[in-house]
Amino acid sequence: MAKNVQNVEAITNREVDFAKWYTDIVTKAELVDYGAVRGCLNLLPYGYAIWENIQHTFDGWLKETGHENVYLPMFIPESLLQKEKDHVEGFAPEVAWVTHGGSEELAERLCVRPTSETLFCDLYSHIIHSYRDLPKLYNQWCSVVRWEKTTRPFLRTVEFMWQEGHTAHENGEEAEAETIKILHLYADLCENVLAMPVIKGQKTDKERFAGAERTYTIEAMMHDGKALQSGTSHNFGDGFARAFDIQYSDRNNQLQYIHQASWGISTRLIGGIIMTHGDDNGLVLPPRIAPIQVIIVPIAQHKEGVLDAARSLKERLTAICKVKLDETDKTPGWKFSEYEMKGVPLRLEIGPKDIENSQVVLARRDTGEKKFVPMDQLEKEIPALLDDIHRNMYEKAKANREARTFTAKTLEEFEAILAKQTGFIKAMWCGNQECEDIIKEKTAATSRCMPFDQEQISDTCVCCGKPAKKMVYWGKAY
Amino acid sequence: MAKNVQNVEAITNREVDFAKWYTDIVTKAELVDYGAVRGCLNLLPYGYAIWENIQHTFDGWLKETGHENVYLPMFIPESLLQKEKDHVEGFAPEVAWVTHGGSEELAERLCVRPTSETLFCDLYSHIIHSYRDLPKLYNQWCSVVRWEKTTRPFLRTVEFMWQEGHTAHENGEEAEAETIKILHLYADLCENVLAMPVIKGQKTDKERFAGAERTYTIEAMMHDGKALQSGTSHNFGDGFARAFDIQYSDRNNQLQYIHQASWGISTRLIGGIIMTHGDDNGLVLPPRIAPIQVIIVPIAQHKEGVLDAARSLKERLTAICKVKLDETDKTPGWKFSEYEMKGVPLRLEIGPKDIENSQVVLARRDTGEKKFVPMDQLEKEIPALLDDIHRNMYEKAKANREARTFTAKTLEEFEAILAKQTGFIKAMWCGNQECEDIIKEKTAATSRCMPFDQEQISDTCVCCGKPAKKMVYWGKAY
Repeated sequence: MAKNVQNVEAITNREVDFAKWYTDIVTKAELVDYGAVRGCLNLLPYGYAIWENIQHTFDGWLKETGHENVYLPMFIPESLLQKEKDHVEGFAPEVAWVTHGGSEELAERLCVRPTSETLFCDLYSHIIHSYRDLPKLYNQWCSVVRWEKTTRPFLRTVEFMWQEGHTAHENGEEAEAETIKILHLYADLCENVLAMPVIKGQKTDKERFAGAERTYTIEAMMHDGKALQSGTSHNFGDGFARAFDIQYSDRNNQLQYIHQASWGISTRLIGGIIMTHGDDNGLVLPPRIAPIQVIIVPIAQHKEGVLDAARSLKERLTAICKVKLDETDKTPGWKFSEYEMKGVPLRLEIGPKDIENSQVVLARRDTGEKKFVPMDQLEKEIPALLDDIHRNMYEKAKANREARTFTAKTLEEFEAILAKQTGFIKAMWCGNQECEDIIKEKTAATSRCMPFDQEQISDTCVCCGKPAKKMVYWGKAY
Repeated sequence: MAKNVQNVEAITNREVDFAKWYTDIVTKAELVDYGAVRGCLNLLPYGYAIWENIQHTFDGWLKETGHENVYLPMFIPESLLQKEKDHVEGFAPEVAWVTHGGSEELAERLCVRPTSETLFCDLYSHIIHSYRDLPKLYNQWCSVVRWEKTTRPFLRTVEFMWQEGHTAHENGEEAEAETIKILHLYADLCENVLAMPVIKGQKTDKERFAGAERTYTIEAMMHDGKALQSGTSHNFGDGFARAFDIQYSDRNNQLQYIHQASWGISTRLIGGIIMTHGDDNGLVLPPRIAPIQVIIVPIAQHKEGVLDAARSLKERLTAICKVKLDETDKTPGWKFSEYEMKGVPLRLEIGPKDIENSQVVLARRDTGEKKFVPMDQLEKEIPALLDDIHRNMYEKAKANREARTFTAKTLEEFEAILAKQTGFIKAMWCGNQECEDIIKEKTAATSRCMPFDQEQISDTCVCCGKPAKKMVYWGKAY
């Protein structure tokens, strides 16, 4: 019973120690187990099922928009990684190197992919010859490795799971359109599936992906006011194509370089879900990716008819939601705590009295509200409640973001705000990286993005006072 | 157009050079592109989609039978790999070693998983405490790495995709029941989904998995008479549990070692599909995993109404099958060759005459038969034809196996048969590994399995003449 006792022990209070609260949840909700290698996780069934649900939804959207899945090797020869100068500078310091196969030393070291731009370029150089071969809209689901010093479950790990899209286009306009289209898909996923509001925008040059011309991002705010970069989409222009010599015959039979984009989301989103929605009782899962949407807890299950009624209810509800019945001999109270910890959106209680009255109790994880629902109304009530839970979680997260979003016109204001609380600062910027560096040094905040929805906070840069070019969201980030 | 020209070039004749025919197909049907690292493949959309379909089907079966997906890291510390003596001896010679992270040399080398028994044992040692925690029925979909010297697409590659199930049980009977249950699931997958007949049986000790007590296998016969080991299921007894000290409190509160099983199938199955069903025109895909089940080829598509009719037909058929319409400006003959090469089970031709007569032509890939079908019968005809194609492909493969399966009572007979042709030999065996070694040396055949369906060919070992213990299938293998 050791494991179950552990589950219902109280976790650290969220307001007392957010970081400890977070790591308590990832283990006590049985999302992960710490693996045998530093910074690597064992994703347990409940944690992995969340990822599978995200993957299933997003993979469907990718296929609907004409993307195709492929799988490229996990190893990149050192010489291939080095072909694009900015890219290798960005990634070489944090890759794992394979030097031996069996007992033999390799003639050339191989790195374990930190990302696969170079492999896709190598592939595209083989298979793209004519404009008829374009666009290529390839995606892969895999894991990648980055030799991070400091790691935290889901947020920053040595190995993590993600999807990486790598597309090839005839020209810059098409590559840009793809880059933006995917960013909107990512935002849709966060907002309409994970109930996580995001800000869409462009990264500054300083925060751009290694080798990209432009990087777009969606930035979410966690409960503690820190930002989580939740998905990025990069337009490479023809930089990689020139480095890898990927040319095609265009419609006028002229040789042209392809233009490329790449984009990714990862298991980091699970960290985002935890830190956006979780509370002092544990996880709170968005209904649309919850592995269990409704947990049935029988009350006085030893009494005649209770388990039978619970089982037949479970059979019935399988048609409309992901439902589980807990028949174990733990007490109902114990089960309540366990599935609260696991963030199950709805709890359905059924006992002898309920059966007599042809009703059940439905309890919401997000608000704690309980209500009696006639047994014959469940097919209507449950989907409606799940939708309402989604909506409420989204609104709550958005309200938190709004309450923690400030504007600053001077660096003093900027510093004063962040000295009191953590949150987003909207402030104008001159476009100069030196100002970003100064702001980071003074406040620990980085530029999160230049949002698509620009506002004119003032006319001058918050840092240097020179004419402003862009409104920027600033914040401390995970 | 270079790529398309290549597709419809003739491939090597299957009877002339089976190995060359095979590699022609894997590239010309656009299943793979050779990657940047020796022995690693780029799985292209069409090849990957076959794997996705296999995965989708089998993952559903695993979930129905109570299995749960997890994901464990790709790295195994050297000390962990070494914990089980037989296992490390089996795998250490063929693993890839990571020695550096970024610019630092690691204190302990990490191997890239060749298989994950050791990681699952490490996990189970953390999370299994009581009989209440059992069974654990975990599975993961991932890729593994084995530093093979000689590689061939799908059949033997340095990195390959697979699923690996790792289960933990209270006792040996339960572990054995799981091992056998999975073997039957694998056989079902091969026979009822991939149209590949298999022989179920147990491996001899010589051919057993490193660290297992018993290994079970399904063996398929390829068109050329060679065997393909297509899936294996291992019962470890408590060997790993003792090496990793994984104990639990049983129902009497006594400490017991868990019993374990593991089992896997891989992208090797795609090689099996090619070599079982392919012909001189290319791939022939089993309908139940074909990425495209019906290809619509419009005839005289420039004529008024043809493309409209083809498009509306496509929309309509989407409800009952995986259908694609090829609207490109290639000639119909070109398209016929292309989709034959890709093994699409059914071709639907529609031209002006057909529209006039409210009919289409359906052409089977497996037999080449063509017939007119009234437009309003397609919802009935197509599923029936797809089923019949599956049945016919299975029967054809089985007939090939039966025609190439022989019995031998003496080693002379055994040698004489294999001198004339390649195939399976059913022969009795004394149970002694020396006889296996002699047979292999003289005939290049290895023991494929001791089939569940035993026959009494004779009373004495085909090699040494001593009393026989088992009937064994022998053959050359991929």
